[in-house]
Amino acid sequence: MADSNTIRLRVFSLNCWGIRYLSKHCRERYAMIGELLSREEHDIVLLQEVWSEKDFLCLKRKLSSTHPHSHYFKSGVIGSGMATFSRHRIHDAFLYRYSLNGYPYMAHHGDWFGGKAVGMVILNIGRLAAHVYVTHLHAEYCREKDSYLPHRVVQAWELQQFIRHTSSGADLVILAGDLNLHPQDLGNRLLRTYTGLRDSYTETAKFDGCEDGITLIADNPFINPKELCPFEKGIRIDYILYKGSGRVSIQCESLSTTKGSVPDHPFPYSDHEALSADLQLQTLTQQAGRDETRGEQDCAAGKLAELVDIVTEARTEVKVGLYCAERMRYTAARTGVMGMALLLLELAIAAVPWLALRADQPFPRASFYLLGVLCFAILITTFLLYIFYTMEVKALQGAEDQMRLAVGSLQERLRGFPLAQPLNQEKDIS
Amino acid sequence: MADSNTIRLRVFSLNCWGIRYLSKHCRERYAMIGELLSREEHDIVLLQEVWSEKDFLCLKRKLSSTHPHSHYFKSGVIGSGMATFSRHRIHDAFLYRYSLNGYPYMAHHGDWFGGKAVGMVILNIGRLAAHVYVTHLHAEYCREKDSYLPHRVVQAWELQQFIRHTSSGADLVILAGDLNLHPQDLGNRLLRTYTGLRDSYTETAKFDGCEDGITLIADNPFINPKELCPFEKGIRIDYILYKGSGRVSIQCESLSTTKGSVPDHPFPYSDHEALSADLQLQTLTQQAGRDETRGEQDCAAGKLAELVDIVTEARTEVKVGLYCAERMRYTAARTGVMGMALLLLELAIAAVPWLALRADQPFPRASFYLLGVLCFAILITTFLLYIFYTMEVKALQGAEDQMRLAVGSLQERLRGFPLAQPLNQEKDIS
Repeated sequence: MADSNTIRLRVFSLNCWGIRYLSKHCRERYAMIGELLSREEHDIVLLQEVWSEKDFLCLKRKLSSTHPHSHYFKSGVIGSGMATFSRHRIHDAFLYRYSLNGYPYMAHHGDWFGGKAVGMVILNIGRLAAHVYVTHLHAEYCREKDSYLPHRVVQAWELQQFIRHTSSGADLVILAGDLNLHPQDLGNRLLRTYTGLRDSYTETAKFDGCEDGITLIADNPFINPKELCPFEKGIRIDYILYKGSGRVSIQCESLSTTKGSVPDHPFPYSDHEALSADLQLQTLTQQAGRDETRGEQDCAAGKLAELVDIVTEARTEVKVGLYCAERMRYTAARTGVMGMALLLLELAIAAVPWLALRADQPFPRASFYLLGVLCFAILITTFLLYIFYTMEVKALQGAEDQMRLAVGSLQERLRGFPLAQPLNQEKDIS
Repeated sequence: MADSNTIRLRVFSLNCWGIRYLSKHCRERYAMIGELLSREEHDIVLLQEVWSEKDFLCLKRKLSSTHPHSHYFKSGVIGSGMATFSRHRIHDAFLYRYSLNGYPYMAHHGDWFGGKAVGMVILNIGRLAAHVYVTHLHAEYCREKDSYLPHRVVQAWELQQFIRHTSSGADLVILAGDLNLHPQDLGNRLLRTYTGLRDSYTETAKFDGCEDGITLIADNPFINPKELCPFEKGIRIDYILYKGSGRVSIQCESLSTTKGSVPDHPFPYSDHEALSADLQLQTLTQQAGRDETRGEQDCAAGKLAELVDIVTEARTEVKVGLYCAERMRYTAARTGVMGMALLLLELAIAAVPWLALRADQPFPRASFYLLGVLCFAILITTFLLYIFYTMEVKALQGAEDQMRLAVGSLQERLRGFPLAQPLNQEKDIS
């Protein structure tokens, strides 16, 4: 079926937790990460939470001989925190900023300032075009009452859209990063089912790492085990996903993760565990490629119904978010109107005796000014919040519209109408 | 070469200038546009500046029989203003928000609130997958001293990236919209050269419209001719661009524009002229497709050097923008520090006599509070501006990084190294 042209590709992913002056042992950990990367010489290194460009540049210098090609994705106020290093030349880079990413006033969570996004680099491995994606989705701070869930679902939606639409010309696709999604979470199912990406942890025969592949583990000294509750041992939220094409078939030979400590070092690389996947690429003959594509297509047809369910579930979640955002916008508007009414009332109380009696001001001056300042503060804050929530509403409505369209299109495909996606594949076959 | 399977495709584009209560005769003009569209029955209608969703829904009802498929792109505070109507089923929609789009405090220009973006819909025309894009770039308010130029260049950069990366699987690509770019402007050259999109005005043999294809004309009653100065007659900033693929060749049979007035109506459809292109799609045999692709590739090789020059020019423009943004950020920081110093000084003046002498406050109370409020206002404003300019700096740096990468990659291609882009094409050929 396939010829003997086999390429080995080693991919590394780590959330570096690199907040200068705030993350513990930040500088020392970067030094350790640099050592590891220059020693291991992975083909592709995908890092998240490299918040400072200085740290990126420091790594870049350190890896200049082993990984001569790199790209740092910039966005938001602080940056996207995403960096990629490669042994293969990077030819193109493109960034998609998610339309929703938390709230600026939740400064202690900080996600909004991070400008979360998905970055893509295109590189050539031999004669193969690899589209490599790195991303970091909004964190989950409380699983029981997760107010960011609609935002994360929209991010997962946009992530799958971006990958699907930008990978048509790719021979192989790799996505790595901290998805902040458990393996069976809605966003994860949406991503994997829609794009066809395969999870290196479930696909590999040879795994060396923490139990159940968890990447945020209770044994890590930087982790407060209480935050993981009710998952005593930890959770799996970091992934390396991949898929081939009609030209290449990919197998994950082995996957390994760090286990919360590093030999000869007093602390681990990060609060997340690092992933390292060993992929085998096998270039296919034209006939084998056609068989592979046809096989995938049959398989995809069987998954359509599942996809309809998942997108419908996501749509429901987005609708819940929309309801909340609209309520918050309404509250901001109402508070703004109350602030305005208070200001007018204050002016009236101050003005009436003055106008009527030309008497001295009975209103104590200090209170008058303080109340005035309070009213203005309310007006400005509610105005900014109203604008922010309006943007949130628009983004959620936009995602919901796209999901409705997708469900309609999927259902029509189920009924057997000819469609864009299969057509593209048919071209390869015909 | 090609078989006889020819499809006719009529595409319409118009910037509707649809600001409710502000644009003149808005409701009447929408009624006229609705009539025109239901009468003409174009295959694809791409509208810009449909700022109110109510107007979109009104048009949707009116066109429900002629154009049963539609999508309205939502983003930003007000929306993207972009709508598409189609006689062919829309299977997928995707929106890319530009990272830069003017300044929120330039409220009278309003672009920032519009959430400018490029929208893509995928539809099937017969058995062909058409990727149809609609966009509206930041307006040019003063050509001599255009402070938005770096923003528009970055938008054009992101537009070409988005089209290039999302159209690999397309049989045909169509882009229409108000680009706010003259035909030879940097952004326009960047877009056309990088994507290979062809301009229907320059390509067609049969043109019926205003002189030089201008779409913002002095004769339009909604236009103040002074604003067009120094272009007395008008400017061409609205476009319908297209390209085929190895499966389809496209010719623009005819292009027409409105001419500033509508028969039997007292005013035109909009302040922009509407474009209507008649495209002929010819599906190619496999051999013809290969020849076509190979021809395009040879042609593309010749254009590499030109592309290097254009991207370098764009990079210079972005660097100028970066310099300005960094200066503005510095000014905001400095003003903030001055506000803080003033506040501390005021507190010191008020506190020192009180602490030292326990005497009555010598500082007049009214001035004290007013100055305090002023200081706080300065601090808040400069803080918000600092955050905004930081985001602008990051976005400009990001674009510049990508451009540097692109120039490097293009130069390597010029030197004859194997690369991702040609490889994808080779696949079709081999």
